[in-house]
Amino acid sequence: MRDSYREQLDDILTDLVAMSQMVSTAVREATNALLEADIHSAEQVISGDDKIDDLQADIEARAFSLLARQAPVAGELRTVVATLRMVTELERMGDLAAHVAKIARLRYPEHAVPDAMRPNFVRMADVAEKMVIAAGQTLNDRNIQNAQELQARDEEMDDLRKSQFRVLLGDDWNYGVEAAVDVALLGRYYERIADHAASMARRIIYVVTGQFPAHEVWPQP
Amino acid sequence: MRDSYREQLDDILTDLVAMSQMVSTAVREATNALLEADIHSAEQVISGDDKIDDLQADIEARAFSLLARQAPVAGELRTVVATLRMVTELERMGDLAAHVAKIARLRYPEHAVPDAMRPNFVRMADVAEKMVIAAGQTLNDRNIQNAQELQARDEEMDDLRKSQFRVLLGDDWNYGVEAAVDVALLGRYYERIADHAASMARRIIYVVTGQFPAHEVWPQP
Repeated sequence: MRDSYREQLDDILTDLVAMSQMVSTAVREATNALLEADIHSAEQVISGDDKIDDLQADIEARAFSLLARQAPVAGELRTVVATLRMVTELERMGDLAAHVAKIARLRYPEHAVPDAMRPNFVRMADVAEKMVIAAGQTLNDRNIQNAQELQARDEEMDDLRKSQFRVLLGDDWNYGVEAAVDVALLGRYYERIADHAASMARRIIYVVTGQFPAHEVWPQP
Repeated sequence: MRDSYREQLDDILTDLVAMSQMVSTAVREATNALLEADIHSAEQVISGDDKIDDLQADIEARAFSLLARQAPVAGELRTVVATLRMVTELERMGDLAAHVAKIARLRYPEHAVPDAMRPNFVRMADVAEKMVIAAGQTLNDRNIQNAQELQARDEEMDDLRKSQFRVLLGDDWNYGVEAAVDVALLGRYYERIADHAASMARRIIYVVTGQFPAHEVWPQP
């Protein structure tokens, strides 16, 4: 472990960025498992979730220890507290990627997503993955502009989810109840990944500016 | 605001218990909205969620201020950090209750839950509400025994969710796709309320003992 307090905080943030990369990989692999009915990808995401959980526990312990031994103030206290939040959000995103992979595994060798919904999920998965990557980059750069751009993607996710329900509940749905339930839950999981990424971005804005973005500008999910 | 540091921490915990009561009321009202197709209850839960969010913001600000000005250590630092987590879990439970109420409102004057699933939801909602109440009481008493008993309820919730899927995907399901999607999402919301209550209880064990309950004893959701 490095000695100085500032170095330890930098190391925590570096690991948080690494964790966001593990999570974006998990989201990408889970999507591959889902859309290609790839059982190998599914198993990898499910078993790999433990590594994300371990990194969470490690980052939490170090952030807590910093609080206990160094009693940071002002911007650095905000950073440590935001770290404790962001690590929880990333852990949840990892869980959600594993949930997607579990549905893919459950339906294997069939595809859980019917052809009619495939373009919607390709887009949804892409938005979710890009949001996780953007949240990680924003954390790395502390660039508020990036964080604010995440909002536009979050709105796209909402639109995709709405159009999903239109297809699901429309007269042309003839894939039955099981596929409908899978699609509804899968859509929910991707939507939640996006919500957590957006929430992470709000915490970064808070770290940099000391203020949460106004509700009217960026409503809480 | 009270003066002494210990009093301020006590006030925060008192408000956290009050917040858990607001959330358990929201869960009960949302269930009433759902099972009785009661639009008044639905509207109340949805509009009342702002009050829960406001209390979250207030508790967070005070916990942060305690960290900044008092630099607590040991058990008190654990308590403040756990407070920041628990307040987030409670805010999510409030959101999930509002999600339940929104589905009830969307289907009004019809019932979102078909008769065949009603007993399952009565049970599920009861378990979820009791878990929120138990989490609040555990926080109030700092009694680990209560927290550990929450585990049994969490397992009952898992069983209820599994039996829900059996009915939903069984040959006798003749309520169509829309009801199936509603049931799948509603089941997910109640399950997540229970997960958050269980997670809150784990944090209370952590506050009291300084250690998280072992994974094998109480697996993370």
